[in-house]
Amino acid sequence: MYSPDASGVIRRTGRIPDTIPGISRFHQSTLHQGRIERHLLDSIAKVSDMRIKVERPIMPESITLDESKVNDPDAYPVTVVLRYLSEDEATPTQFGHKVENGLFRSSLATAEEEDSMYRLPEGAEPGQIETVHAKYVIGCDGGHSWTRRQLGINMVGEQTDYIWGVIDVIPETDFPDVRGRCAIHSANSGSIMVIPREDDLVRFYIQLPETAAAGQRVDKTKFTSERIVEAARKIIAPYSFNVGRMDWFTAYHIGQRVAEKFSRDERIFIAGDACHTHSPKAGQGMNASMMDTWNLGWKLGLVLLGRADPSILKTYESERRPFAQDLIDFDHKLSRAFSAKPKAGQAGVEDGVDPEEFKRNFEIGNEFASGTIINYPASVLIAKEESAPKASRPEQLAKNIAVGKRFKSHQVTRHAEGVAVQIGDLLYMNGAFRIFLFAGDVTNPAQMERIFQFADYLDSENSVVSRYTPAGHKRDHAIEVITVHANNLEQVDMHDFPAPALYPAYDYKKIYADCPTYHDGCGNVYENYGIDPAVGCLVVVRPDGYVALVADIDDHAALDEYFGAFLKVPAQPVGRNTEPDWTFIAEEKKQRRLAAKSQQPKHAVQPIVPGPAKVGVTA
Amino acid sequence: MYSPDASGVIRRTGRIPDTIPGISRFHQSTLHQGRIERHLLDSIAKVSDMRIKVERPIMPESITLDESKVNDPDAYPVTVVLRYLSEDEATPTQFGHKVENGLFRSSLATAEEEDSMYRLPEGAEPGQIETVHAKYVIGCDGGHSWTRRQLGINMVGEQTDYIWGVIDVIPETDFPDVRGRCAIHSANSGSIMVIPREDDLVRFYIQLPETAAAGQRVDKTKFTSERIVEAARKIIAPYSFNVGRMDWFTAYHIGQRVAEKFSRDERIFIAGDACHTHSPKAGQGMNASMMDTWNLGWKLGLVLLGRADPSILKTYESERRPFAQDLIDFDHKLSRAFSAKPKAGQAGVEDGVDPEEFKRNFEIGNEFASGTIINYPASVLIAKEESAPKASRPEQLAKNIAVGKRFKSHQVTRHAEGVAVQIGDLLYMNGAFRIFLFAGDVTNPAQMERIFQFADYLDSENSVVSRYTPAGHKRDHAIEVITVHANNLEQVDMHDFPAPALYPAYDYKKIYADCPTYHDGCGNVYENYGIDPAVGCLVVVRPDGYVALVADIDDHAALDEYFGAFLKVPAQPVGRNTEPDWTFIAEEKKQRRLAAKSQQPKHAVQPIVPGPAKVGVTA
Repeated sequence: MYSPDASGVIRRTGRIPDTIPGISRFHQSTLHQGRIERHLLDSIAKVSDMRIKVERPIMPESITLDESKVNDPDAYPVTVVLRYLSEDEATPTQFGHKVENGLFRSSLATAEEEDSMYRLPEGAEPGQIETVHAKYVIGCDGGHSWTRRQLGINMVGEQTDYIWGVIDVIPETDFPDVRGRCAIHSANSGSIMVIPREDDLVRFYIQLPETAAAGQRVDKTKFTSERIVEAARKIIAPYSFNVGRMDWFTAYHIGQRVAEKFSRDERIFIAGDACHTHSPKAGQGMNASMMDTWNLGWKLGLVLLGRADPSILKTYESERRPFAQDLIDFDHKLSRAFSAKPKAGQAGVEDGVDPEEFKRNFEIGNEFASGTIINYPASVLIAKEESAPKASRPEQLAKNIAVGKRFKSHQVTRHAEGVAVQIGDLLYMNGAFRIFLFAGDVTNPAQMERIFQFADYLDSENSVVSRYTPAGHKRDHAIEVITVHANNLEQVDMHDFPAPALYPAYDYKKIYADCPTYHDGCGNVYENYGIDPAVGCLVVVRPDGYVALVADIDDHAALDEYFGAFLKVPAQPVGRNTEPDWTFIAEEKKQRRLAAKSQQPKHAVQPIVPGPAKVGVTA
Repeated sequence: MYSPDASGVIRRTGRIPDTIPGISRFHQSTLHQGRIERHLLDSIAKVSDMRIKVERPIMPESITLDESKVNDPDAYPVTVVLRYLSEDEATPTQFGHKVENGLFRSSLATAEEEDSMYRLPEGAEPGQIETVHAKYVIGCDGGHSWTRRQLGINMVGEQTDYIWGVIDVIPETDFPDVRGRCAIHSANSGSIMVIPREDDLVRFYIQLPETAAAGQRVDKTKFTSERIVEAARKIIAPYSFNVGRMDWFTAYHIGQRVAEKFSRDERIFIAGDACHTHSPKAGQGMNASMMDTWNLGWKLGLVLLGRADPSILKTYESERRPFAQDLIDFDHKLSRAFSAKPKAGQAGVEDGVDPEEFKRNFEIGNEFASGTIINYPASVLIAKEESAPKASRPEQLAKNIAVGKRFKSHQVTRHAEGVAVQIGDLLYMNGAFRIFLFAGDVTNPAQMERIFQFADYLDSENSVVSRYTPAGHKRDHAIEVITVHANNLEQVDMHDFPAPALYPAYDYKKIYADCPTYHDGCGNVYENYGIDPAVGCLVVVRPDGYVALVADIDDHAALDEYFGAFLKVPAQPVGRNTEPDWTFIAEEKKQRRLAAKSQQPKHAVQPIVPGPAKVGVTA
């Protein structure tokens, strides 16, 4: 953080961590959008076996929705007419010239690949018209979204007065913190944000001396790169500032707006900048936008596969729109603070920005950027139990796990290998829900008996696994069960757990321990999640990694109710698990269990009955 | 570790970490040789701009050395006659069949790539003869090395009686530790080593019931995969053991031998298994072999570029042969322990293996596998000061840095960014030596004055940088200087250090701090290396990452002497550094320095004069 001292010269006034320590195992990092696009394109090619291609030089002409068919799952109610562009039309211009534009150019594509992105499919002619009939359409078409305008959805919000320039350059400067992310507030020349990038590049957001009246459209052509660099030079003085190489530049006028609606009849959706526009400085644009389609993607996937009821699509807007509104409100506050004059040391500037408050805002921005601030509201997909009496709330089983928030990653030990693994890495994003069985201290026979009863439930005809897994798939296809016990590797063996329910044959990735490792310490997951090892619990995690439900280990009915509300029973479910315990100590386990059953449980666990519709199963 | 209990049934008797905690920031990991080969092939292609190709279906017919030319640096004294193979000759057989052999097959090559490796170069005919005149030849041609036999170099050592089978399989077993690295000693059926691999594969080393008399050649064709699996089943009982998929298998008879010499006149070298053969269980084969050519490669590179005297090539054998001998001695001990019967709980087996001793041996094996056990002897490249009086030994400047051992990596903070960086990652393997300037606490003006004097030396006409860097290259091309100070980022700025010597213009990767970071704690490098921040020191690191010299900051003569002994002054050296201090506080620095010079240093630092030839420079 740089602010002017008493004599008006900028000085470093403080440092804060770019990422709040402990908020995540990942740190904040700047990443070229082209790298993300590369990952997405490669992944699309791989997953679709090269069948799905991203076609660029094609524009929509019209979109219509046949409202009579929106409730028919087999119908294709959306009609889109597409027009194939000529090369001239397909190559965007910037400032009147055909300057390459960093916002859509991928730095990781070869020249041929880049050319091919703007070439028409083989045999297609410029001007050709194609009509597409679709079940669903998602418009991810940016701040000036054509889709949004076709749907007549309004943007709500306003525009700031300030105009900013952006340059991606290799700077020649003796400003010593140019390789750190910096906020520089000059006394009278405006502000700069410094964001170091790859390959010695640095992005500078530079406040320009010009302002625009509300509603006034800014003529961007007058903001040349020379004018932007000149503005930077004034702000960063007395340090030198020259440009070694300029990779890209632009100028923008901040608008902070949210779309009134995010879909039409849950058949045509808009996502990303089409739904919300804000200042680019907090790195929210790509993050918030990817989270939109991330939220929508798995829901659409399950609906299209016939595995979930289309009603879950309503949660896209109910989950993402409130978040977008919060983000815009915060951005409104932050960007005004950034463009305003600094307060510190400035005689006569009483309405300026307090550097301390500015720092606090930066920290909140961190929670937005990391997504940890998100708390989705109660819905068919988020089983919040706020109405239940406090003592019997399932959330009390895991005091630090909030239903509706991201399932935070902590380290566990993979029992079969003794190596440290992050729970986040167990959440393969393959459309499956996960039930984490926090089995607790299973050296207590009564607790282990509860685990065996849960396994009996899973293997039974009517468990959520047996009902919702289509025949022909592995039992972890739709709902994967992962066990995390609270013992160390000397106290309990994988063989001690019920097989095949929790320990399927030759599958070494289903059982984890909360215990120390040789090299990576201990994750202390029970402590971190606030779970009592004497009791344990179940945590249901959605395919996108958000916590959907916390329930008692014995509360099988809670699982039945949660999944029953939106999952569809397939034509042929996989049904009861008929495989026997495959481990060589199967007989020993049976004997131990019989002995345990004859004892009174040490921890008499009361089943939790959250509502009248649910029936607890007693241990 | 599994050993028999009193009733002769195998039980887990203990666990040890696969890697000694703290020995390295990397953990032990199994890696397919094909993956290493892929990296090497890709890197050869990239660095040579696709000009260097690895040609496989070619065999040497003869090799001759013209001894009259071995001292002429421009001569090509080695003549090798090559014969191009037919496809039949080029495709090796295993057990009489053309089974794919995991030891040379790359799992990462496509089928086409693999085919092309065994295809002759375009236009070449099978049987064609090519004569190559070479400056140097390195025979990396395995345990049965043709090169070694042509040179008439003997292998010294012996062979064990034991025969082992190896299988790479996806096992179907209820042995619970099959995804951990295990040593299983059965009561009477022999031993197994379990090494989990990628893609659910597991490698098993299985002791076979047969033994071979000393010197007897074993007929491997009788060891079928079925016999090997059957032997495994007996050892691992009562656990089940079946093979889901077999990827590869072999059988071998352990020989532990080291070559008498590693080169002929430092013109023809042998490396890897051609120099030393031993049991494969401790993962030494590929590791020790790569370290051979790693040791030789940069020396050859400097000699071929005319930048170093050819005499440095003698250090290949003087450094690698003692290590190979130590490795063989250790392997001899370990492999006998592994093949012998266990002691624990076995009545009547008095000469068996003590599991505790076995564990200790495993730990020593770790130091071999990680390379941390290596301590190269004194030579022109390793400036050990053992003969100097103890008090004035430069090693006392860095009590935990051993000259001759690997420069251990610790975390430092990159000053420009405030992020944690490993010193090991600063050792780009580009043929450059590095001088680490441990500048100490530079808030003490006297200490900072020493740093400025060191910078004055570096910039002067006769410094090692000015003398040995060829004109036209950057000053860090041959010898890179990296500063690590002991202050935090609030106490000192990069601008405070002398520019351009230690802080070249727009280079943010030369100055590091030993201070805490927001996310990764503090590396405590001064404490870890045993360096007094009030004194500091210089550490010279060779291009392969081994410590070559530790010297006082003022002992510029030690640098002159070390590099002068083997580096050649290029026809046109880069010479004195004529660039001025480019930072905007240059004038301020000059004033501070004048002020500091007028003071008596707080720490009166006595220059260390290790020998009569050296002259200390007084601070």
